Amino acid sequence: MNEILQNIAAALGPRGLVTAETDMAPYLEESRGLYHGRARAVVLPASTGEVAAVLALCHEQRVGVVPQGGNTGRCGGAAPAPDGREILLNLKRLNRIRTVDPLDYTLTADAGCILADVQAAARGAGRFFPLSLGAEGSCQLGGCLATNAGGTNVLRYGNARELTLGLEVVLPDGRVWNGLNALRKNNTGYDLRDLFIGAEGTLGVITAAVMKLYPEPADIQTAFVALRDLDAALELLALARGMSGDAVTTFELMSRRALEFAVRHVPGCRDPFDTAHEWYVLLVLAGTEPDAGMSARLQRLLESAWERGLAADAALAASEGQAQDFRRLREGVVEAQPLEGGSIKHDVSVPVSRVPELIRRADARVTELVPGIRPCAFGHVGDGNIHYNLSQPVSMDREEFLALWERLNHEVHDIVAALGGAFSAEHGVGRLKVGEMARYKSPVELDLMQRVKRAIDPRGIMNPGKVLPE
Amino acid sequence: MNEILQNIAAALGPRGLVTAETDMAPYLEESRGLYHGRARAVVLPASTGEVAAVLALCHEQRVGVVPQGGNTGRCGGAAPAPDGREILLNLKRLNRIRTVDPLDYTLTADAGCILADVQAAARGAGRFFPLSLGAEGSCQLGGCLATNAGGTNVLRYGNARELTLGLEVVLPDGRVWNGLNALRKNNTGYDLRDLFIGAEGTLGVITAAVMKLYPEPADIQTAFVALRDLDAALELLALARGMSGDAVTTFELMSRRALEFAVRHVPGCRDPFDTAHEWYVLLVLAGTEPDAGMSARLQRLLESAWERGLAADAALAASEGQAQDFRRLREGVVEAQPLEGGSIKHDVSVPVSRVPELIRRADARVTELVPGIRPCAFGHVGDGNIHYNLSQPVSMDREEFLALWERLNHEVHDIVAALGGAFSAEHGVGRLKVGEMARYKSPVELDLMQRVKRAIDPRGIMNPGKVLPE
Repeated sequence: MNEILQNIAAALGPRGLVTAETDMAPYLEESRGLYHGRARAVVLPASTGEVAAVLALCHEQRVGVVPQGGNTGRCGGAAPAPDGREILLNLKRLNRIRTVDPLDYTLTADAGCILADVQAAARGAGRFFPLSLGAEGSCQLGGCLATNAGGTNVLRYGNARELTLGLEVVLPDGRVWNGLNALRKNNTGYDLRDLFIGAEGTLGVITAAVMKLYPEPADIQTAFVALRDLDAALELLALARGMSGDAVTTFELMSRRALEFAVRHVPGCRDPFDTAHEWYVLLVLAGTEPDAGMSARLQRLLESAWERGLAADAALAASEGQAQDFRRLREGVVEAQPLEGGSIKHDVSVPVSRVPELIRRADARVTELVPGIRPCAFGHVGDGNIHYNLSQPVSMDREEFLALWERLNHEVHDIVAALGGAFSAEHGVGRLKVGEMARYKSPVELDLMQRVKRAIDPRGIMNPGKVLPE
Repeated sequence: MNEILQNIAAALGPRGLVTAETDMAPYLEESRGLYHGRARAVVLPASTGEVAAVLALCHEQRVGVVPQGGNTGRCGGAAPAPDGREILLNLKRLNRIRTVDPLDYTLTADAGCILADVQAAARGAGRFFPLSLGAEGSCQLGGCLATNAGGTNVLRYGNARELTLGLEVVLPDGRVWNGLNALRKNNTGYDLRDLFIGAEGTLGVITAAVMKLYPEPADIQTAFVALRDLDAALELLALARGMSGDAVTTFELMSRRALEFAVRHVPGCRDPFDTAHEWYVLLVLAGTEPDAGMSARLQRLLESAWERGLAADAALAASEGQAQDFRRLREGVVEAQPLEGGSIKHDVSVPVSRVPELIRRADARVTELVPGIRPCAFGHVGDGNIHYNLSQPVSMDREEFLALWERLNHEVHDIVAALGGAFSAEHGVGRLKVGEMARYKSPVELDLMQRVKRAIDPRGIMNPGKVLPE
């Protein structure tokens, strides 16, 4: 064992250092299987002070450090390089909810807390922590902040960024920045907090955060709406925001094909309507009083949508069971799509009003290039964030189709860029999209980011090779 | 006229350059009269390209540039240095509302647009732009962004930062960063937007922004509540958030003394109650439907507050006239306080739950130091932001009292710091509070900010001497 590992072992004790290949393996796997990393060691600090000690040692020796939370990201952001020279720093032992303050509507937690545990701690105090996403049972708060995670409640409550008040960060040289305040207003100098949020561990390691809480939703009403056409989605969204008292928490678009995939493959998924429609929306309104009148509002909204010709059909969930059925249709798409063969994915965003144009232009272009391709668009239209996934033509060879991944990515991302959009809406850049950064970001923007990187991490030890092109 | 001014004149034309002392004077005045700046010239660019041309010239010659909006800030952030070597760059000719998109709930405007004009443009499209503050008739959007302005709607809608989607910024060397997107989600690298917001012109010049719009409030209900005591304010706020569907837009605290000042000096201000109470709250709920049921909600809330012993008395506005009377009481404090003699001010924030402790500790300390001093606390308790103003003892000499300004500032700010608070909640740092930055910020935080400054403005030409200590 070389000197740096000996020093880390001395600082963290035997539980803090993993070097056996078999013990390291679970940390080096990545959910999509795209990256096979190796590492000098997996380090498991149990406190902010231990994180600081590790970074100070790595800084001195110029050893690269890859921070890792629940390792549920899908862009390789927590995967070390294949050369095995980096140290992987997993935060899971920093897992204490420090305080919950219902009067302040705030919660302070270590970065390694599992997201579901943070939600539960808020609920235990009669409050609501809105960050919610598929991996919430295993992803960690720190990872959510490092990637500025989105999820299902962004329309109403914002991304991870908007939910954060304060941060504690260990800097690349091992110093600790204590920005762990619970202030709603603070105009004392540059906004360092938002620089670390979304930096994917390339500027430092987030070790704790103060998060905003909200009143718990008590009156939740769900509808499934068949749209007149794609453009009607935007008008319905604007109408719903106005007529509900801005109480729309979910506004999820699904194409007919997406619905069909779910109905075909996922038990319990049924088409709520007798006739087929091209586009659907899952719509949820939530009030915080037990009897906030959301049911009446939703009814009025759907009547108004009908009168304006926006809705072709609509079903209002009469029970929690029916609401679950509607939600299941949306979740079923994610589950069903892999069963239709090869799938090429895009996590893109455009201004909300450009969503229909994005889908139409991209559909036309990919169909031109790959006749028979089956676009399966769904997602958070209220955030302008569409998961624009492409299922292979029925008769095509899977590998042949997947070989088109990069080509189709560029075609779709070119259209996104032309519409003023982003090639990563909620999953981040990681290692996967560094090439897209070089391709789509202006030289001015890249230069600014690189200046910031050099200023804060001059030795370049933090998560090397991620986010920014060399 | 020296070379740089000749070059600027050539680039901007005769309307773009002001050099006569009398014509420059209005730009060099500052509302509090604390700073008497001089400038080489006042420059009035009419486009982003002209701003870029000016900055490129100044960068080349290492001439300091002071960006200025409506010049309504109160911290000297837009005042040039007394040596008369800097160029003052006022944005007022960049005053075009570029687009309003009701479907997107967004608005794009030049930085020099007057805030009230931005509000009006949103209203004209059936939408609501929530940023609202005393100077809205003359302050500019760019200045609001550079200082991350707060105002009266922060509790519900957030500061200027939270209302911003995209920015266009001219960098210190004259390059333009086009971050003018209308994306709700965008996880493609570092958050440069929030670095420029609140940087008070020390990193570049904001020339345009995409702002979020909201559904227009239609059902607005106002109450004036006498509290059991100071602590009841917090419980009432938490209760109001829960019971209203998080529809609280205003929650303003006033002490008895603040109310008395308003009643004594401002025509139309009347005490709504027969008995005197120590603390009051102005409470506003707003729904976006014409009949959102806010009146019934407010009634239920006040009944519940009464049952829990939080309210000693309460008045619900039965008409818009009565609501105006209640608002007038709160606004009257600002108008009345100067008429009570010398006043030493603090724009501070603490975690919401610490507001009562802040007021009690500060009251005790300043009374100990200056017997007879009259603390007059009021402000946005829902944001933890208290305007903790101190009126002089009745019999004391005004100048003698004002000579205590710095001493009392430090005493109050020390208590704020001990409670995890900030010495500037919404007005920023400017020139006025650079000393407080040095006193209260940790060396790590100052070092991070200085690194960012050097990385983006290595020649130090942007708003020299503001925000950061040397």
